[in-house]
Amino acid sequence: MTAVLDWSAQAQPGTDGFVQFNWRGLCMNQLPLLKSINSPRDLKAIPVEDLEELCAEIRSYIIQTISQTGGHLASNLGVVELTVAIHRAFDSPNDKLVWDVGHQCYTHKLLTGRRDEFPTIRQENGISGFPKSKESIHDAFLSGHSTNSLSAASGIARAEMIKGTGNRVVAVIGDGAFTGGMAYEALNNAGSLNNLIVILNYNEMSISKTVGSFARYLATVRAKPKYLETKHSVESLLNRTPIVGPGLKRGVKKAKLRLKNMLYNSNFFTDLGFSYLGPVDGHDLHELADAMEWAKKTDKPALIQVYTTKGKGYPRAEKNPGAYHGISKFDVETGNPDISEENSFSAEFGRELKRLGDRDDTICAITAAMKYGTGLQYFASAHRDRFFDVGIAEEHAVTFAAGLASNGMKPVFAVYSTFLQRGYDQIIHDASIEQQHVVFAIDRAGIVGNDGETHQGLFDTAFLSSVPNMTIFAPATYAELKAMLHRSLYEVPGVAALRYPRGQQDDCPAFGDPTADYHLEGKGNTLIISYGRIFFNALRASHQLREQGVPNALCKLNRICPIPQEAVEEMLRFERIFFFEEGIRSGGIAEHLLDQLNQAGYRGLYHISAVDRFVPQASVDSSLKQLGLDANSMAETILQHR
Amino acid sequence: MTAVLDWSAQAQPGTDGFVQFNWRGLCMNQLPLLKSINSPRDLKAIPVEDLEELCAEIRSYIIQTISQTGGHLASNLGVVELTVAIHRAFDSPNDKLVWDVGHQCYTHKLLTGRRDEFPTIRQENGISGFPKSKESIHDAFLSGHSTNSLSAASGIARAEMIKGTGNRVVAVIGDGAFTGGMAYEALNNAGSLNNLIVILNYNEMSISKTVGSFARYLATVRAKPKYLETKHSVESLLNRTPIVGPGLKRGVKKAKLRLKNMLYNSNFFTDLGFSYLGPVDGHDLHELADAMEWAKKTDKPALIQVYTTKGKGYPRAEKNPGAYHGISKFDVETGNPDISEENSFSAEFGRELKRLGDRDDTICAITAAMKYGTGLQYFASAHRDRFFDVGIAEEHAVTFAAGLASNGMKPVFAVYSTFLQRGYDQIIHDASIEQQHVVFAIDRAGIVGNDGETHQGLFDTAFLSSVPNMTIFAPATYAELKAMLHRSLYEVPGVAALRYPRGQQDDCPAFGDPTADYHLEGKGNTLIISYGRIFFNALRASHQLREQGVPNALCKLNRICPIPQEAVEEMLRFERIFFFEEGIRSGGIAEHLLDQLNQAGYRGLYHISAVDRFVPQASVDSSLKQLGLDANSMAETILQHR
Repeated sequence: MTAVLDWSAQAQPGTDGFVQFNWRGLCMNQLPLLKSINSPRDLKAIPVEDLEELCAEIRSYIIQTISQTGGHLASNLGVVELTVAIHRAFDSPNDKLVWDVGHQCYTHKLLTGRRDEFPTIRQENGISGFPKSKESIHDAFLSGHSTNSLSAASGIARAEMIKGTGNRVVAVIGDGAFTGGMAYEALNNAGSLNNLIVILNYNEMSISKTVGSFARYLATVRAKPKYLETKHSVESLLNRTPIVGPGLKRGVKKAKLRLKNMLYNSNFFTDLGFSYLGPVDGHDLHELADAMEWAKKTDKPALIQVYTTKGKGYPRAEKNPGAYHGISKFDVETGNPDISEENSFSAEFGRELKRLGDRDDTICAITAAMKYGTGLQYFASAHRDRFFDVGIAEEHAVTFAAGLASNGMKPVFAVYSTFLQRGYDQIIHDASIEQQHVVFAIDRAGIVGNDGETHQGLFDTAFLSSVPNMTIFAPATYAELKAMLHRSLYEVPGVAALRYPRGQQDDCPAFGDPTADYHLEGKGNTLIISYGRIFFNALRASHQLREQGVPNALCKLNRICPIPQEAVEEMLRFERIFFFEEGIRSGGIAEHLLDQLNQAGYRGLYHISAVDRFVPQASVDSSLKQLGLDANSMAETILQHR
Repeated sequence: MTAVLDWSAQAQPGTDGFVQFNWRGLCMNQLPLLKSINSPRDLKAIPVEDLEELCAEIRSYIIQTISQTGGHLASNLGVVELTVAIHRAFDSPNDKLVWDVGHQCYTHKLLTGRRDEFPTIRQENGISGFPKSKESIHDAFLSGHSTNSLSAASGIARAEMIKGTGNRVVAVIGDGAFTGGMAYEALNNAGSLNNLIVILNYNEMSISKTVGSFARYLATVRAKPKYLETKHSVESLLNRTPIVGPGLKRGVKKAKLRLKNMLYNSNFFTDLGFSYLGPVDGHDLHELADAMEWAKKTDKPALIQVYTTKGKGYPRAEKNPGAYHGISKFDVETGNPDISEENSFSAEFGRELKRLGDRDDTICAITAAMKYGTGLQYFASAHRDRFFDVGIAEEHAVTFAAGLASNGMKPVFAVYSTFLQRGYDQIIHDASIEQQHVVFAIDRAGIVGNDGETHQGLFDTAFLSSVPNMTIFAPATYAELKAMLHRSLYEVPGVAALRYPRGQQDDCPAFGDPTADYHLEGKGNTLIISYGRIFFNALRASHQLREQGVPNALCKLNRICPIPQEAVEEMLRFERIFFFEEGIRSGGIAEHLLDQLNQAGYRGLYHISAVDRFVPQASVDSSLKQLGLDANSMAETILQHR
């Protein structure tokens, strides 16, 4: 049996020799071992000596597939051996596996009956890029947001203990996720969960390089001599010690214990009641197997610190794992992922904030492990002392920003909409009550596409607008983004947010003054209202209708909270109002406008099209269409209510 | 100068000798030292030898005042010396003080110009029970919710560094607050904040006894020999060592370093980059002063672990600090605080859950450090293996509950409304997307009174109802509470919440079937709608109006999300609808009902009275009146819109 690819290329990272392999046209017959695995049971039947081969096949299949579909590459290449070792050692679905963040679950999916569906990953009606319990009994818990795994695994493990099953629960969590406070909350409560095994996957990366003191601390643990080697030599020494009577035996036991303590070393995890083993080479199947057996035997919660290389086996991704974290389609041979996105809201925001920061040295920029994703790299390079990557710690980020603001700075926290959900209490309690001047630059607002339910930015309008004294802007063009960022920094006295979508601006011409709170134009008794990206769909619908002889007026809201009272007054003259909103309906802007119109005496037709459910993975266009938020659906909705 | 009270009584905890002192009629002339302090500057003028006396005066004044006003007693008595030491060593408001949770700030308030206003604490228009930057320049940051101090202090400290002032920032945080993940997020990012001094106030308590492994870890640190004593003897030894040449000097330096490392001990905090000093006796003014000077000299962020006794100086509170945490008025002589609240929603909930747990061994109960506050003590005693106090860790609590639910348990997380804000993302991501059957028992929903803005339960209706597939009940009587708890556990398939107020049920007779989704009765074209506690105010308003010849119908919503469609249909026949809501207006239930009525074709008058701002401290009745939610205001509102 030969490997599909000559993986010896791994030995020469950085050379260009890698491109000579024929990646295209890989078919299942070239992956005989993987082909034989339809469940974890089949994996156990594979001889140990073939496992490396299997790992090579898995890597080939992942690289080939993700090059076509896009997805998370580097993290998945890093945990191939680890995943194989876990499924060899444990018995899923009786034993439960919880993957933190979950974008490292591809090998797990391949080994648990989803090999053939794998090319549908992250596509509409395809399998999810994250573990999803509705997709497979082997996915114990949903995970899309970071750092929930230890808490979820604790609940699952506790349930097994209450049921008295003896089943084990394995949670795999990266050092990046350990920058989130939930991990500590869970560790602090896990002391009695003897069936819990935590695998800390140390790769020095979250999406970018892991920040903070704890990561440095973990690195020192890594630098210690490997435990297992030492353990073996000590054990053989002890085994050679003759044991005569029970007294001597006790003495030897004590000595063993003392040696054990010395070897294990007291560290943060042992202090919290865990049995600790590490560092373990996460690409060495034998060492991993030993570690898993050790964990099964401990009578305490166990933590294994495994070190892996992100992007392992694909030299380009190994060299630059950040770039290959979450990627679009790429060319395996040239290794050219589309990550630059120079033309995007994120980049425009980032460049503008950098420019503003040149002139105003009170502006600070904060990210929660998304420097590149949010476009903050420009600011970071120019204003190093005012840029803060706090790790995956949105709660801290919000309150840290509020602290900066309370002491004369102008902090801008750039964050994806879905992740800001983590900071809701801090937005209320630390930022808003005392009206600290904090700016939230909310990226990925609205439908995000292939990451699905866990990553949609649909709740920010509702949860932010529930907070008194909140100002929210919704730029739909780069020019508006810049104008509203400026207003947020220099006009709004308290908390301000601006929300904008993933990707590029629409190629429609601008509509109204980007510095205005709203713009309303057109004739007739029908008014179409929208904001943000889908306003341009509303614009198209408006044109369609006019072409069909249906006159209508169009209102674009720029400041969506509070809704400008003059806009409300101006709307009163219409008989039919249609509001299209790329956000949750319940508590969204359209509901608030209805409340304001109702107070102002409006009694005409008011129709809301917004989001009323969790939105699964699909292309943005497809999702918007299904939600009735594309131009055609909008026009249809309006015609239906004439 | 003599102490106002004979504090030697402290030496006999548990005796009843304490009651012989004359607590009543304490006046400022009996507190000559405290009387002389109008700012931290005055404190610095007091001779060192008088400081103990001052502390005694402060204790007298706090005990006497809180016995009249209610408030947080035990925590404040614990930090008298610590607060004095901090204000002696640092220079507020240039140096900034951040108090975690803040219910330990009374001495701070007394020393910073609020001595005379102190008896107004927690009352309408009086001073706050928490630090509030709008109240005093000495209150650097608002703190009502736990575990925000290190993040806020980090922001404040970073701003000082950017400004280059050299000012220091001192954060005081208890071991209880350290069960919250935000503390770790902040520590992880504080490595370069050389002007940050963290004082970890170790008293083994949050509100109840601190749970979790980290508290046990801190206890081991406490058990180590005191650092300062050892340090002094080592230093004198080293100072006696003759230093001849530069080579030897280096050698001695190295030896010093090695000794220092040995003495300091590597621990969690030093591993994260802090200089650590501890344990320090938090009631020894000299030791505290030494520690503060040490902290000022370190060139790294410093952490001082201080141990204090909650309730120090008031034997009854020392013996039972949990009971004296947050208390109503009490009799200083008999020491009888009103903490039992046998007749309350909390207790009724707790007893009912215990009963249900007797019959159903899948029911689990979770609290975030509020076992007694939420009434879970009944369940905890009876079902020890299914009761979980996770510390002040709401994020973990929600996801832990979701994990339990995913594995066959029926978890009930009992939590105050304001604290559940911390779990918003987890409610969406971990509980709701996959419809885990988690029940949230939301206590202290609505206006809570004297704790003010930070503790009002006004947002749960908005943030919960924004989440798809959510079911929310609003019991207004004990019978309804029990019925809805049962429905939440056995009828609702996914996430369910029930929200109920602090305190007792109204003495009004019940209205409708407690198991129904709503009840509507009465005649006329005017409909009054409400839910929860203030429904009974609506009932009174309805009666008032009928007596004045204004016929009206009344609708009580029991299930407020989703609003029953039959109820909406039934409402359509009215011409005027008035909705009274004890919750935030923006995103609240009244707005959602307007949306539903509008969809159903309703075009009549619809008036909402709800909360549209942060609500400051006052009695519940006074707040409701100001918000237009008492019976008279409701009747008036309705008459105004005839």
